[in-house]
Amino acid sequence: MRRSKITLSSKEIPEKWYNIQADMPELPHPPLNPETQEPIRPEDLEDIFPGNLIEQEVSQERWIDIPEEVLEKLTSWRPTTLNRALGLEDYLDTPAKIYYKNEGMSPAGSHKPNTAIAQAYYNKAAGVKRLTTETGAGQWGSALSLGCAFFDLECKVYMVKISFEQKPYRRIMMNTWGADCIPSPSEETSFGKKILEEHPDTSGSLGIAIGEAIEDAASSADTKYSLGSVLNHVMLHQSIIGLETKKQLEKIGEKPDIIAGCIGGGSNFAGLAFPFVKDKLDGEDMKIISVESTACPSVTKGPFVFDYGDTAGTTPLLPMHSLGYDFVPPATHAGGLRYHGMAPLVSKLIEDGFVESKAYDQLQAYEAGIIWARTEGVIAAPETNHVLALAIEEAKKAAETGEEKTIVISWSGHGLLDLSGYEEFLKGNLDSSSMSEEELQESIKKLNDNLKP
Amino acid sequence: MRRSKITLSSKEIPEKWYNIQADMPELPHPPLNPETQEPIRPEDLEDIFPGNLIEQEVSQERWIDIPEEVLEKLTSWRPTTLNRALGLEDYLDTPAKIYYKNEGMSPAGSHKPNTAIAQAYYNKAAGVKRLTTETGAGQWGSALSLGCAFFDLECKVYMVKISFEQKPYRRIMMNTWGADCIPSPSEETSFGKKILEEHPDTSGSLGIAIGEAIEDAASSADTKYSLGSVLNHVMLHQSIIGLETKKQLEKIGEKPDIIAGCIGGGSNFAGLAFPFVKDKLDGEDMKIISVESTACPSVTKGPFVFDYGDTAGTTPLLPMHSLGYDFVPPATHAGGLRYHGMAPLVSKLIEDGFVESKAYDQLQAYEAGIIWARTEGVIAAPETNHVLALAIEEAKKAAETGEEKTIVISWSGHGLLDLSGYEEFLKGNLDSSSMSEEELQESIKKLNDNLKP
Repeated sequence: MRRSKITLSSKEIPEKWYNIQADMPELPHPPLNPETQEPIRPEDLEDIFPGNLIEQEVSQERWIDIPEEVLEKLTSWRPTTLNRALGLEDYLDTPAKIYYKNEGMSPAGSHKPNTAIAQAYYNKAAGVKRLTTETGAGQWGSALSLGCAFFDLECKVYMVKISFEQKPYRRIMMNTWGADCIPSPSEETSFGKKILEEHPDTSGSLGIAIGEAIEDAASSADTKYSLGSVLNHVMLHQSIIGLETKKQLEKIGEKPDIIAGCIGGGSNFAGLAFPFVKDKLDGEDMKIISVESTACPSVTKGPFVFDYGDTAGTTPLLPMHSLGYDFVPPATHAGGLRYHGMAPLVSKLIEDGFVESKAYDQLQAYEAGIIWARTEGVIAAPETNHVLALAIEEAKKAAETGEEKTIVISWSGHGLLDLSGYEEFLKGNLDSSSMSEEELQESIKKLNDNLKP
Repeated sequence: MRRSKITLSSKEIPEKWYNIQADMPELPHPPLNPETQEPIRPEDLEDIFPGNLIEQEVSQERWIDIPEEVLEKLTSWRPTTLNRALGLEDYLDTPAKIYYKNEGMSPAGSHKPNTAIAQAYYNKAAGVKRLTTETGAGQWGSALSLGCAFFDLECKVYMVKISFEQKPYRRIMMNTWGADCIPSPSEETSFGKKILEEHPDTSGSLGIAIGEAIEDAASSADTKYSLGSVLNHVMLHQSIIGLETKKQLEKIGEKPDIIAGCIGGGSNFAGLAFPFVKDKLDGEDMKIISVESTACPSVTKGPFVFDYGDTAGTTPLLPMHSLGYDFVPPATHAGGLRYHGMAPLVSKLIEDGFVESKAYDQLQAYEAGIIWARTEGVIAAPETNHVLALAIEEAKKAAETGEEKTIVISWSGHGLLDLSGYEEFLKGNLDSSSMSEEELQESIKKLNDNLKP
């Protein structure tokens, strides 16, 4: 009797987040003030973040209580199921066991609500009335809209103009949850106006949208800004993914040989992987692999430097793998993997050799996504397809060597609002969208003068 | 500590379907041959259905084993969770407890795969190589595409032309699972060609698409036809919804006062309700309510007659509530509720007084859907919104009377591929889309001459 799903009851949900900062042999450098090149102080962030989240950002406590109000909301879909990919294993005729943690079960369809709900709660608790954020493809904007609906906060989402026009369903989703979503650049901020004057026909960028959202938050006392990845407190909130997965693997007596997730800003990977990184630091033998897109190979090709978190160059300098804050990756359907940098905590673990990395191109990713959909049923987000490519490659290797590897991946979201990429792939209209080595070198060269952490 | 989710492990999945035909005080009449008006014989159906499913269609066994191969596939998302709608209850400040069975968790996003996977399995077991079907909005076509991917069958979906053009994402979903989906009427059947000659600009209809799918199946030895609702074996396969729900309610010591689901062809309602109808027949006190759209009020307004199952008038005559087989309901976003008739088993239970019915219009449904999304997170399908309207109405009544009612509904699917209706509603562009009493009487008058069961 084969059963693919490993469940946890809602009483088994982890009640504390895991903070890897308590266990890293060496912590990342703190972010620097770009003008003084001195470490920023927590209070420098108070214009845009509430104090309780800044506290979490710098905390070195190993375990941090998840507030009851957050747990209650999370349990409407959490714990998510861990599934064994039996259909795929049969298809590949592999001795490898492939498990996937299904983060597509959330109302917004990805792991993003894990932190969106927590951030909305902490902002509400700090007396904030309104949150602003940016969104590209719309995953993060919709997750924050959901969080704000739950905690009765106003929400304003600056959505990159080209996505706003191409992805009306994501915008409608945000409106359904009561959020205001406008195309960026907009006439509603001075930064947006300036861009529109200079480039009236621009299709927008994540960097511009961040600029607008931060300006909006900084210029109003009861409004704060919310970020969906990269920062330490986001990785903290996502740790629930890996904590649940550990409980599920324990239930069935499994030990992972490979832990993997796709990386854009790093949060879904960190969420699954950090609790296992702890085991690895404690001596367990396993590979922990972050998987990125060849269109934006921040960690496989980018150096470890201090760089701006946003394209406009307004944030503190973060110690991270980067392709340069003004790097513009080729257009791909995996919008969530098109970030120039990488979460400092993930970057540091890669730099120090605890986490490996691999990159797959768009065609490899969609090929894996099609095989997955036809054998496992669920249709993955374009971003998620990148880690599916790794899982299939490793399972094929195992079929050759006969090794009974246990592979555990983060299935970060479903692709039901991103089906157009599947159509383009099936029609043969997609290319690999990889960066050429020349362009890459050109971009990386400019980083030579950056400060090194 | 409030937790909204009641889980069952995959080991707790029901291993038998419940067949209400074993317990009904009186069975519905068998379908009639339209020419002879004699009951059809099982072998009359063999051109389009495999023998094993025809056997289930007429079986009066109370419990029917779910094949292991079907269970294995179902457990990739089943048992689905039963959730308590705590956010909504708080918002309504009601003493009522509202539970919803989340059938949106399947890869296709609705309850439809419960029968699609079973039907694909039985056809495969009978040596069938290829299945045909029709689809309107696309829920059923995508579910069958998934079932066929799992059991390695070819799948051909005739999709109503207007939906084919308006809902590209549903078509891409089917293609992703490997199915062939074409607009109906098509040049690929003689029925389709005839329609195109007579009405070259037609936008198609479900009746035409059924006609094409049946012709395709009947004209090829290794091809059969598959239907997503109405028939007895479909109700049987969906009974897993109610069987799981009963286990979940037992776990928390709850007894339902109201059981409800929306009805188009009747299958998601039957799936939840039939196991509870048995309890009601055994003397338990509860209301069992089917909820339809005022745009297509088959059971609240339509008589109980023998009528064709399809708009083309080619199927056996089914004993059911109907608005007339050529009835064309107003356009609404709830495509799944636009069926002129109703499953004979559901019709008979309504006729005999075991099931009540109510109708809500499109505006009431979307208003409920918005309240639901903002308090519970998950965004429901337009069809599902109709039962949410009932749940909210009943919970408000309970708030007035102070009664602690326990309301259990089938949350039949998510609305992520049907968001345009939400946008139209939020913009104020929707009307109620109810049938006028005049038009209704006009249509029903024609049924006076129909045979009565």
